[in-house]
Amino acid sequence: MKTVQTIKSHGGQVRVIEHDSETLGVPMQFAAYLPPQAEKGPVPCLWYLSGLTCTWANVMEKGEITRAAAGHGFAIVAPDTSPRGEGVPDDEGYDLGQGAGFYLTATQAPWSKHYRMDSYITDELQTLVTDSFPVAEARQGIFGHSMGGHGALTLHLKNPDLYKTCSAFAPISAPSQCPWGEKAFTAYLGSDRARWADYDAAILVGRQPSQAHILIDQGTDDQFLAEQLLHGIFEDAARTAGQAYTLRRQPGYDHSYYFISTFMDDHVRHHRQELFA
Amino acid sequence: MKTVQTIKSHGGQVRVIEHDSETLGVPMQFAAYLPPQAEKGPVPCLWYLSGLTCTWANVMEKGEITRAAAGHGFAIVAPDTSPRGEGVPDDEGYDLGQGAGFYLTATQAPWSKHYRMDSYITDELQTLVTDSFPVAEARQGIFGHSMGGHGALTLHLKNPDLYKTCSAFAPISAPSQCPWGEKAFTAYLGSDRARWADYDAAILVGRQPSQAHILIDQGTDDQFLAEQLLHGIFEDAARTAGQAYTLRRQPGYDHSYYFISTFMDDHVRHHRQELFA
Repeated sequence: MKTVQTIKSHGGQVRVIEHDSETLGVPMQFAAYLPPQAEKGPVPCLWYLSGLTCTWANVMEKGEITRAAAGHGFAIVAPDTSPRGEGVPDDEGYDLGQGAGFYLTATQAPWSKHYRMDSYITDELQTLVTDSFPVAEARQGIFGHSMGGHGALTLHLKNPDLYKTCSAFAPISAPSQCPWGEKAFTAYLGSDRARWADYDAAILVGRQPSQAHILIDQGTDDQFLAEQLLHGIFEDAARTAGQAYTLRRQPGYDHSYYFISTFMDDHVRHHRQELFA
Repeated sequence: MKTVQTIKSHGGQVRVIEHDSETLGVPMQFAAYLPPQAEKGPVPCLWYLSGLTCTWANVMEKGEITRAAAGHGFAIVAPDTSPRGEGVPDDEGYDLGQGAGFYLTATQAPWSKHYRMDSYITDELQTLVTDSFPVAEARQGIFGHSMGGHGALTLHLKNPDLYKTCSAFAPISAPSQCPWGEKAFTAYLGSDRARWADYDAAILVGRQPSQAHILIDQGTDDQFLAEQLLHGIFEDAARTAGQAYTLRRQPGYDHSYYFISTFMDDHVRHHRQELFA
């Protein structure tokens, strides 16, 4: 593990870390933000999962996340969105392969050799982060945007003791039923749709709702809303299952980092209130 | 004038505008942010000048500027940093030509045909903005970063009735005496250094200090501090001239947008306090 960059922001430090990932079989980069409060002892930690094409850099630079984290005393971990580099299978589309790992363990060739973003994050990176940084293990939450919102919802529902709280910006809410999800799941998991359920938030929430109160923000002018995001399907399933959630329709907002940054502080505050309730 | 993009951010709107610039002789893009307060009537306006290589997009996306502007009720105008496009002279270096206009009127070939960023901003864009947006003409200030800090200081000192307030992040403070400035001024203005004085904040402040209280933030870990920025020379000249200023040395901060965004709210608040004093 090597710190390749340290940048001061809002009184704390963005650290860009490079390490050889055993799970993924390639060198990976991620970023951790340590707020000023971390100088005095362990702080709660939020895992931020990014959307298609992104790396750790997008949200750190454009998401106003260091400001919100410093304000509420959170560490932030921002992993990459897939394995990357030479020798890692890729696709010409932006929505499959490098930059589009969908936070799952691929079972199909050629993807199955490297694409295991869910266990990379929940196991390998979790251990590395808690061993290296002053993070309060018992107070961790997860959130993300678009494909990363899908990741946050599914990883939370499957690991509610690890990520006690969850929120999402414009998540892909029912991937088995949208073009992005169908393309990725067919490639990574094969055409047997029964195997997709384990990675579909709208299905998982029906099977195993969590004790958390999930916050979701969705812009009404989001260009991907009707075709790809399908928050209504998740909402119906959550209501039926008794999952506590708040879905806020934000008038006029699109799918961009301007949208994310506008509501970033609200999300971090939501996790704070839930984790310290 | 054509609006090519409208994006909601922090309750207001980022508008990306394209127009044919008479002053520069090419089509140009800039961005304006209108805070929610602009729906009710004219708002004060801050002009943000960016640094080398940047366009309007860098500060809008990475500067936390829409948040600060909405919080304090300011419109923001973010011009490009030079004329651009085919037929516009350029240089292989990032610090001359396109992306490096230095907010001056070039007198030397081949630059003199298009490079007139100072009058583009103070005259043409000023008229366009006040004609098109609900901006309180009597309450305008100017600020910027690095090359844009140089632009903000010099345009303020030469137009104190137009830009009544001024602040800067890590400005190029004495361009006649640093490599970036010497290269650019030699190319744009010729080798007669007497002609450079009109674009050197450290010289201008001695000749014509303003009534404003200028706020400058400078990171102590800025990689360009010792060689390029030279804030000490500006500080000495300001003190001698009786120019009111505050120069804050910010420990551990570098030259990046993380630094800018950390202190963005402070700067917008400073302009607010000065313009409404």
